[in-house]
Amino acid sequence: MIDKLKIKYPASEKVYMAGQLYPDLRVAMRKVYLTPTATRQADGSVAYAKNEPVVIYDTSGPYSDASYEPNLSKGLPRTREQWILQRGGVERLTSFSSVYSRERLADASTRDIRFPAPPLPLRALPGKGITQMHYAKQGIITPEMEYVAIRENMNCEALGIKTHITPEFVRDEIAAGRAVIPANINHPEAEPMIIGRQFLVKINTNIGNSATTSDIPQEVEKAVWSCKWGGDTIMDLSTGDHIHETREWIVRNSPVPVGTVPLYQAMEKVHGNAEDLTWEIYRDTLIEQCEQGVDYFTIHCGIRRANVHLAQGRRTGMVSRGGSIISEWCVKHDRESFLYEHFDDICDICAAYDTAISLGDGLRPGSIDDANDRAQFAELDTMGELVTRAWEKGVQAFIEGPGHVPMQKIPENMQRQIEKCHEAPFYTLGPLVTDIAPGYDHITSAIGASIIGALGTAMLCYVTPKEHLALPNRDDVRTGVVTYKIAAHAADLAKGHPGAAVRDNALSKARYEFRWKDQFNLSLDPDLAAQYYREGHLEGGEFCTMCGPNFCAMRISRRLDASAPATSDSPSEGHTAGERCDDILLQMDEA
Amino acid sequence: MIDKLKIKYPASEKVYMAGQLYPDLRVAMRKVYLTPTATRQADGSVAYAKNEPVVIYDTSGPYSDASYEPNLSKGLPRTREQWILQRGGVERLTSFSSVYSRERLADASTRDIRFPAPPLPLRALPGKGITQMHYAKQGIITPEMEYVAIRENMNCEALGIKTHITPEFVRDEIAAGRAVIPANINHPEAEPMIIGRQFLVKINTNIGNSATTSDIPQEVEKAVWSCKWGGDTIMDLSTGDHIHETREWIVRNSPVPVGTVPLYQAMEKVHGNAEDLTWEIYRDTLIEQCEQGVDYFTIHCGIRRANVHLAQGRRTGMVSRGGSIISEWCVKHDRESFLYEHFDDICDICAAYDTAISLGDGLRPGSIDDANDRAQFAELDTMGELVTRAWEKGVQAFIEGPGHVPMQKIPENMQRQIEKCHEAPFYTLGPLVTDIAPGYDHITSAIGASIIGALGTAMLCYVTPKEHLALPNRDDVRTGVVTYKIAAHAADLAKGHPGAAVRDNALSKARYEFRWKDQFNLSLDPDLAAQYYREGHLEGGEFCTMCGPNFCAMRISRRLDASAPATSDSPSEGHTAGERCDDILLQMDEA
Repeated sequence: MIDKLKIKYPASEKVYMAGQLYPDLRVAMRKVYLTPTATRQADGSVAYAKNEPVVIYDTSGPYSDASYEPNLSKGLPRTREQWILQRGGVERLTSFSSVYSRERLADASTRDIRFPAPPLPLRALPGKGITQMHYAKQGIITPEMEYVAIRENMNCEALGIKTHITPEFVRDEIAAGRAVIPANINHPEAEPMIIGRQFLVKINTNIGNSATTSDIPQEVEKAVWSCKWGGDTIMDLSTGDHIHETREWIVRNSPVPVGTVPLYQAMEKVHGNAEDLTWEIYRDTLIEQCEQGVDYFTIHCGIRRANVHLAQGRRTGMVSRGGSIISEWCVKHDRESFLYEHFDDICDICAAYDTAISLGDGLRPGSIDDANDRAQFAELDTMGELVTRAWEKGVQAFIEGPGHVPMQKIPENMQRQIEKCHEAPFYTLGPLVTDIAPGYDHITSAIGASIIGALGTAMLCYVTPKEHLALPNRDDVRTGVVTYKIAAHAADLAKGHPGAAVRDNALSKARYEFRWKDQFNLSLDPDLAAQYYREGHLEGGEFCTMCGPNFCAMRISRRLDASAPATSDSPSEGHTAGERCDDILLQMDEA
Repeated sequence: MIDKLKIKYPASEKVYMAGQLYPDLRVAMRKVYLTPTATRQADGSVAYAKNEPVVIYDTSGPYSDASYEPNLSKGLPRTREQWILQRGGVERLTSFSSVYSRERLADASTRDIRFPAPPLPLRALPGKGITQMHYAKQGIITPEMEYVAIRENMNCEALGIKTHITPEFVRDEIAAGRAVIPANINHPEAEPMIIGRQFLVKINTNIGNSATTSDIPQEVEKAVWSCKWGGDTIMDLSTGDHIHETREWIVRNSPVPVGTVPLYQAMEKVHGNAEDLTWEIYRDTLIEQCEQGVDYFTIHCGIRRANVHLAQGRRTGMVSRGGSIISEWCVKHDRESFLYEHFDDICDICAAYDTAISLGDGLRPGSIDDANDRAQFAELDTMGELVTRAWEKGVQAFIEGPGHVPMQKIPENMQRQIEKCHEAPFYTLGPLVTDIAPGYDHITSAIGASIIGALGTAMLCYVTPKEHLALPNRDDVRTGVVTYKIAAHAADLAKGHPGAAVRDNALSKARYEFRWKDQFNLSLDPDLAAQYYREGHLEGGEFCTMCGPNFCAMRISRRLDASAPATSDSPSEGHTAGERCDDILLQMDEA
């Protein structure tokens, strides 16, 4: 497997903030150090003014802590385990409850690819509530709740920026179902994060092998890779061999919550014949995954037998894999789906491990022509009914949304979701605002994602350039994650999230002052920004290729602005010696 | 130079539509042929149903006409010349009016790089109005107006789609100043196109060499390259040597309108010292470029001496090169800029050639922190005053806009522009909705561009991935243009442009029916879509890498949908033989 997988951000340090309710909390963040602003004085000398470091929300987990030595075969530190055990109400099982899990552990043929010594699972004691929602309803602020409150605010208190996000506010949002902390008690390696309209917009990355591609080390590396670029959760959508083993490796090494679509694995267990699916097989799969530590399940229980026909006559029918499978089951058996009929049983299982439910939109539109149609909205109504049933059992839940929606139809999606689903968090895939750009659907969907995020969608499922064409590779994952960080951040700015503009402002100040390294280091993808700059420089000779020798707007502007630090006053050179590109490049080479 | 530069779109034919007022008009469009839908019958045979070709707005000019042989040294056919001469009111000059033009023509050292035999210019006879706006105000529908009416509608009449766009409607919009047809009488090679809120959203591509990079053949090729991908106009922003000669080659070979920022060349003439700029030098530059055929000028005449200080204290001061240059001039001379003072003279020059004026936003925000500030809006007020003065002289005009604007501040930009600038078309750069993603600013800006386009912005200036970092290369131009086609098209859908959804619907139907080739051919970038598909296929073995053998949602959905053509009913195979990826790849290889 992979021996070493450390994440390094330029000019950055991993820092930890303590809690007040829970002083032992170590809330992880990334601190980016900046170079000083150089100001030329009247006498020709240069004065330097310090630029304060910028604190950034950090999804990379211990991998970016210089003092941490990753050991994938051991897994990440199980930080949350003490919190869970101290709260009580749980028991350590002596063996796995799932028949399938026990079979896999006994299967000698997979010994070499198994995660060594998977931990025995925790489960709620009978009659005990142990979910974050349960505690929130009791008025209890958990360490997870204080953790996310601190995390969401970054260092805005130190900057004098007001925030509405307190531990009590978090608790209240979770109690009301308006926010979710996906935090399976069997995934204590994950750092707490929150999904809700009043918080930073989150993004999810889909990974997973198919029957034909990838292998376990690649998938684990892809998970960490997603965390490096800013993915807030990952969904393991594997459909090929060794789903169970792959998932164990991913969960044990993931610092972010992990979601799955259990139906995919259930389908593998019936060799791809939807008709052969049963509640018993599905139930065992849920328990198997709950005990591995999956933090949320996409469950397509919003499809009613009576609504399946609504997809007929659509331009693109059903495009959800889970939705199409369960629809086929309904039609073949001519009865209500076992997901819908057993929804209360599903909730009981999830409640015992604090696995959140993501109500999957099996009837989401797969083309702009199908957007906002009867099929889509009938399912939304059902999801609104189901989410309240989940809440009654203390199960955290959120709602999945489209898909393909032209811009003018996006607001109705958000408004209806808030109304019909009682303010449960919304989690959308894009939406793509046009169908005509395969190869660029990270962009068509980021447009829709920004808009629906600004309107209140809590989490955005990323889309890569390969959508509709092929499975994404490593580069596609990076492009998809960064693109979705843009969409989420644009929405955070639009919503006025406390401190969201701090990073923009620091980067723009660096840009105006020709502090190129700071500009790169503060950007979502420092490597690519520096690479483009370098390549351009090599083509361009000794001047910045942005402007050439005579035409730099910012340089002229700074000459005119008496209040700004002047770095150059000679029109015959592009920048002062301290700012010349070749100097910058040398600095970068040293770094 | 370049000998051969033909554009080939897959499964496409160049078609021409005739006019009704002007039966000789040949309005160029691209017709994409589709494969039939295959339907498996009860007896196992396959029936085929025709799919109608899709007609697409086409910016590629004669280069994509199979019967046309490009000859860059001769230039494109001068189609509009007859229309202009027949309307009268113009004279053919016997020499160039600009001193500088005559000097360049007499300069032996540039003989080898000059366009051979540049045509002598046309100019309005004294006292004659010859602009599109002049004719529109007289109630005259020109061939250009009928051309754009037909072009905007594509074949929607044949499809039974209602349209508001008639030649009379076009005339009315131009007469009112709400739309512009950039159509210099000395650029008869350009196909007429229209910029206005009631029409398809257009995109502009910036090209041009700097002092340090590129050469003439590369720039001409970049112009044609932009047209291939869908650029509606190009701006030649060259700042290096041979600006004059480069521009001549570009204009003679450009099927789309060409814009410039004359101040850049004026700056070259004073060796980069803004202080030395004079009205006389600038005036000669305007005439030089009008007689070459430049269709629109960006002129930063909205900066008043009294407003320059408003940029002080901004996070990023001034980021417009033209704006910063003219501001420096104002400050150094402590007087109103010659652009503002001579605005009526500028209009008189533009009126004589029908060069449109793009009122440049020298005070646009260069960071989200500076968006919608006093500096920006003070300039907008001045532009609103100037645009009415242009209209009084029959000069077509539009207004440039930002820049960097967070999502929540975009609507105010559009609303104020409509109000203060009397519904003159708006032409924005993005806007970028966050500052934190250098290397991805085509995306940060496409988000803002889609939103402001849907609100009514008529033209979007593209941004490439290299923005803020380096000058774009050929790949960056392609990425930038396609990204902006996405933004413009998303806005067209949102505005309900007649027939805008036809292409989306045809592509989605092809997707649902596994007609991969049609899906690629209808996409904005057929080459990239096919490339991604192929690469994925090669990794993925004999199944489509989207779904693997058992998990294709669309296949299952089609099985369930009795009304849809069924192409496969065996769950044990990914697609029927007729749809297998390897067959598709063979088909592609044949094409």
